[in-house]
Amino acid sequence: MLSFESDYTEGAHERILQRFLETNFEQLPGYGSDKYCMQAKKKIKKACQCPQADIYFLTGGTQTNQIVIDALLKSYEGVIAAKTGHVSVHEAGAIESTGHKVLELPEHDGKISAFELKKYLQNFWNDENHEHMVFPGMVYISHPTEYGTLYSRQELEAISNVCHEFQIPLYLDGARLGYGLMSSNTDVTLPYIAKCCNVFYIGGTKVGALCGEAVVFTKQNTPKHFITFIKQHGALTAKGRLLGVQFDTLFTDDLYFEISRHAIKMAELLKQGFKKRGYEFYLHSPTNQQFIILENQEMKELHKMVRFSFWEKLDEEHTVVRFASSWATKEADVEKLFEIIDRYKKV
Amino acid sequence: MLSFESDYTEGAHERILQRFLETNFEQLPGYGSDKYCMQAKKKIKKACQCPQADIYFLTGGTQTNQIVIDALLKSYEGVIAAKTGHVSVHEAGAIESTGHKVLELPEHDGKISAFELKKYLQNFWNDENHEHMVFPGMVYISHPTEYGTLYSRQELEAISNVCHEFQIPLYLDGARLGYGLMSSNTDVTLPYIAKCCNVFYIGGTKVGALCGEAVVFTKQNTPKHFITFIKQHGALTAKGRLLGVQFDTLFTDDLYFEISRHAIKMAELLKQGFKKRGYEFYLHSPTNQQFIILENQEMKELHKMVRFSFWEKLDEEHTVVRFASSWATKEADVEKLFEIIDRYKKV
Amino acid sequence: MLSFESDYTEGAHERILQRFLETNFEQLPGYGSDKYCMQAKKKIKKACQCPQADIYFLTGGTQTNQIVIDALLKSYEGVIAAKTGHVSVHEAGAIESTGHKVLELPEHDGKISAFELKKYLQNFWNDENHEHMVFPGMVYISHPTEYGTLYSRQELEAISNVCHEFQIPLYLDGARLGYGLMSSNTDVTLPYIAKCCNVFYIGGTKVGALCGEAVVFTKQNTPKHFITFIKQHGALTAKGRLLGVQFDTLFTDDLYFEISRHAIKMAELLKQGFKKRGYEFYLHSPTNQQFIILENQEMKELHKMVRFSFWEKLDEEHTVVRFASSWATKEADVEKLFEIIDRYKKV
Amino acid sequence: MLSFESDYTEGAHERILQRFLETNFEQLPGYGSDKYCMQAKKKIKKACQCPQADIYFLTGGTQTNQIVIDALLKSYEGVIAAKTGHVSVHEAGAIESTGHKVLELPEHDGKISAFELKKYLQNFWNDENHEHMVFPGMVYISHPTEYGTLYSRQELEAISNVCHEFQIPLYLDGARLGYGLMSSNTDVTLPYIAKCCNVFYIGGTKVGALCGEAVVFTKQNTPKHFITFIKQHGALTAKGRLLGVQFDTLFTDDLYFEISRHAIKMAELLKQGFKKRGYEFYLHSPTNQQFIILENQEMKELHKMVRFSFWEKLDEEHTVVRFASSWATKEADVEKLFEIIDRYKKV
Repeated sequence: MLSFESDYTEGAHERILQRFLETNFEQLPGYGSDKYCMQAKKKIKKACQCPQADIYFLTGGTQTNQIVIDALLKSYEGVIAAKTGHVSVHEAGAIESTGHKVLELPEHDGKISAFELKKYLQNFWNDENHEHMVFPGMVYISHPTEYGTLYSRQELEAISNVCHEFQIPLYLDGARLGYGLMSSNTDVTLPYIAKCCNVFYIGGTKVGALCGEAVVFTKQNTPKHFITFIKQHGALTAKGRLLGVQFDTLFTDDLYFEISRHAIKMAELLKQGFKKRGYEFYLHSPTNQQFIILENQEMKELHKMVRFSFWEKLDEEHTVVRFASSWATKEADVEKLFEIIDRYKKV
Repeated sequence: MLSFESDYTEGAHERILQRFLETNFEQLPGYGSDKYCMQAKKKIKKACQCPQADIYFLTGGTQTNQIVIDALLKSYEGVIAAKTGHVSVHEAGAIESTGHKVLELPEHDGKISAFELKKYLQNFWNDENHEHMVFPGMVYISHPTEYGTLYSRQELEAISNVCHEFQIPLYLDGARLGYGLMSSNTDVTLPYIAKCCNVFYIGGTKVGALCGEAVVFTKQNTPKHFITFIKQHGALTAKGRLLGVQFDTLFTDDLYFEISRHAIKMAELLKQGFKKRGYEFYLHSPTNQQFIILENQEMKELHKMVRFSFWEKLDEEHTVVRFASSWATKEADVEKLFEIIDRYKKV
Repeated sequence: MLSFESDYTEGAHERILQRFLETNFEQLPGYGSDKYCMQAKKKIKKACQCPQADIYFLTGGTQTNQIVIDALLKSYEGVIAAKTGHVSVHEAGAIESTGHKVLELPEHDGKISAFELKKYLQNFWNDENHEHMVFPGMVYISHPTEYGTLYSRQELEAISNVCHEFQIPLYLDGARLGYGLMSSNTDVTLPYIAKCCNVFYIGGTKVGALCGEAVVFTKQNTPKHFITFIKQHGALTAKGRLLGVQFDTLFTDDLYFEISRHAIKMAELLKQGFKKRGYEFYLHSPTNQQFIILENQEMKELHKMVRFSFWEKLDEEHTVVRFASSWATKEADVEKLFEIIDRYKKV
Repeated sequence: MLSFESDYTEGAHERILQRFLETNFEQLPGYGSDKYCMQAKKKIKKACQCPQADIYFLTGGTQTNQIVIDALLKSYEGVIAAKTGHVSVHEAGAIESTGHKVLELPEHDGKISAFELKKYLQNFWNDENHEHMVFPGMVYISHPTEYGTLYSRQELEAISNVCHEFQIPLYLDGARLGYGLMSSNTDVTLPYIAKCCNVFYIGGTKVGALCGEAVVFTKQNTPKHFITFIKQHGALTAKGRLLGVQFDTLFTDDLYFEISRHAIKMAELLKQGFKKRGYEFYLHSPTNQQFIILENQEMKELHKMVRFSFWEKLDEEHTVVRFASSWATKEADVEKLFEIIDRYKKV
């Protein structure tokens, strides 16, 4: 059945699989010290225009968030995040399981505001009882957010400035970073992110890889003995090539950006198609996830013919659903989707 | 350079890579609910002759040990293991990081003895102060052990009986299980392991996969909400197909056993070659890891021409080193190894 | 200087100190197995009209919350609490440090509502993604709350019913329980609490003891090997008499209730005094903590003559402050307080 | 019944209880900021001849070990201790519960040797796989040890030097420190300990207090926000006076040393009494714990008339038992003990 359920329904970009085949019998050292990891790091540094960057490869998003946050926080510190942040809601308590509280800020289309962040930090330090409270030790943002929205340069810089003022690191979750960077509606670039953030990750799992995320420390701030820390968290990949080959391929000839641009193009087709047919959007998303409001009856009917994600109940009669495009979405499938919808509409 | 450094220097068995290519554009649901995971589980159950088995796929060995042990122990319990067990020494404290002590028993060629295990458990329960001590909550063994040795049926049964008597689960780390099962020197089979152990894992990373271990709960004893537990530990793979396709392939047409048998054959060649040349073995290993004692000078010289692993200093003049074969070892390379050695010997 | 800063500014009720002296040279076994602990438990059971109760003594409130919550939750579960709950805000992340998330509900004068609790639980179980979320594993309420307010019988029963329906335990933090029970404005009794809650604690530190809280498990639901669990958390008192003698004394001849009643009487005097003088109350508190709104200038002036607690900024010109009475408050001191205020008012 | 079971069978030194009474109605601030805590700290600094010392009061030994070790270790580090160390065996896994491994060294009458410590550290750093192992992050010793034995100045200095060389802190568990310092068989003083150790604690619970241990950081090395860290571990005492008054009293007029000296005198009487009667000692203890070897039959008989501690089975017919003196031991009771023994011997 046709599916727009998520951006991880297909395998990996074929060039990656080809590279696996080509390099398969090379005997390589383990734990990330192989040449493909090295090459990939070099290419990523270049793409970030951040020569001092230090890069590590992990296998998934929750794992990455857990490890980076636990490594950077002191034990009495928590991480500030939007109420709707992935770390706040959809990681099964992975952050808390390492002993840290997620300190929630209000969200605005999935984003936090520099103003409210500053107020929060000021209030904390002015509170006479703050020694009895969890210290805010870093800021987590996702870009694109869980709602597909993007920070502008100005917003990012403002948040970064507050972090700097209060001397806590800014961490950006880039699970879908490619789709953010290739949006036609953004002034934020990879080098700009590297400049604003103390650490961020470039998502592979949702952008063309079978698995894998590239963590980038930008300020010579890699936690001491980070390899041991990763191992202790059960996240050190024996065959580092699994991640090295994938990221090396993704960052060769701009493949990562190219396939992300394709997803955005497909998302634009989805957007226009829904708009033309008078569907309401839950919010304006400039990236690969589109949130549509459906009447419950229509949702049920369409669900029989095409796969998409339930997002949340809007009211008794309406539901927010998500249609996601990806590097693997075919234009023909988007067309098919709207044929199905049009056929349904006629009935 | 020729390498016998470990059993994870190559990529994956080519049939696996082929399957990735063939299935790449199928749109599959995430988090292990895809059909390849289902098929793989079915085939593994059959190979284990354990229809009630419940199976989960994780990405690496330390991760698997950490999650299984943490899931089965109560918070005041620790895990019993040999002093040389992987969980005791080489996982960077992954077990302790989840709050549990590793309770060490003496090792005999890497193995624990049922007798000493029983004595330990009796002493604990007879100790008037045991409420102030860590409760022994499960037993960890590796098979093959870190020294390539194997438990016999009788040894395994004896340990299993002690566990049963004290009502604690027996967990077997099968990172190299294939090489143990295909040893010419064993009476232990996969169904026998499924019968004796409450939980064990079938190692993929070191036996032909790019990554992946299959955890098998054999006694309808899967921890409640185990998927959430895995997610919380940062170990839930979004694209479950990564693991499903690999294990489905490995357990189709006995590929897992076939490639393991090849590794054992190669190990036999290594063994005979070293024996014939008068090398001393640190211990008798019936599996794919061979531990040889080298004079330090010879070790240094050989190291220039071939890769193998440092294991430990034996005395001031001798070192224990490891030569490992694997599913990917070529017979020609074993021959080349001995040519190099013979050439060196002549000089 | 006169102080209404908190209910823990004095030592212990003198009868307790006398009992320390009288029993000082009795040789008693350690770790809570002495006869004073036994006697105290018996008396508390009787006061709770709960013969099957199982009781443990710990030294402080945060410690008690941390241990009880961690002991009752499974690792993938969190505890539901009001946004203003002590565990949510003022325990420096003690709950998270044991791996559990605090799941926040809205507060109404410091209380949660059964209706919102039920909605939260329903939403969780109806959410298709709940396997990726923290499971709600217990409910925490404080009584009196952090704002001195009290649940009614009806409210307590409604919450208890929801907990029962969703099969999660209800835990009541009774740091100031005496002051709640002796309020003139409550229909909730100790036996009623024992009936509604799966576990609760009777606070000593703030109600006449030097230290100590009595944890009461009411449903034969004591966690297995709880003594070991307490020890593991660094909370097992070697000289159990320290806690046993105190609670034995507090529950002899209704001392605990008597001294609590005194505190309430003093709080009534505070209340009337402030009311008569036209002060505004932040909320209506029927217990020993009174929250008054002061103009910032007046607050500063009064602070020079009497100690009370800053609570929170109300707006640019007003601040909420707390005046607390306790078992040790002297009527003469309340009078002195208002003399000071009256003198200030005149100026 | 007569008891030599432990050094915590009585309450507190009467001067402490008197001071509780005298200061009881002083209104004091909470959480350790009261004047008695201040005074006690001043006096302890002086006794340690360590003006830069930073001192904190906690309630018990296991709690103290857990908090100090967790605060000083990085998350990937473990603590080195003797196999018989209290943290290794008798704290129910309190150290592991905070995520850290206890790295065990051999024990020699309860002590570790500087030589073996150095070897351990060298081996770790020379091990090519040490990135996959737990990093040794501090050294734990107890003084007196769990066997009542003492380090000499020379031994202590040697250990301290190794720690210094490898840049890891030395931590001394002084649960019974008074009895060690007042031994007639030691050249180690409190200032010497302050000089050699980075942190240590002065035990109160077993030396005259109802509860309480004084942690001394000697090298301006207090962990950042340590009060918050203590709170997070559930160990911050609301009524700090409970600990302040006790330590203030113990360090006034050398009370701590005086009462410790008395315990040593009583231990000498025990020692001589046993020796004269031909009893064998398990080892030579120069402090307040004496370890005697008893025939099982005699042990059983004596147990009916006097309380002492089971220590461990020596062989099928003999048991090691412990007789402990303390600050509260009466000379008349020692005499009674030997009357009982003599009477038994005659029968």
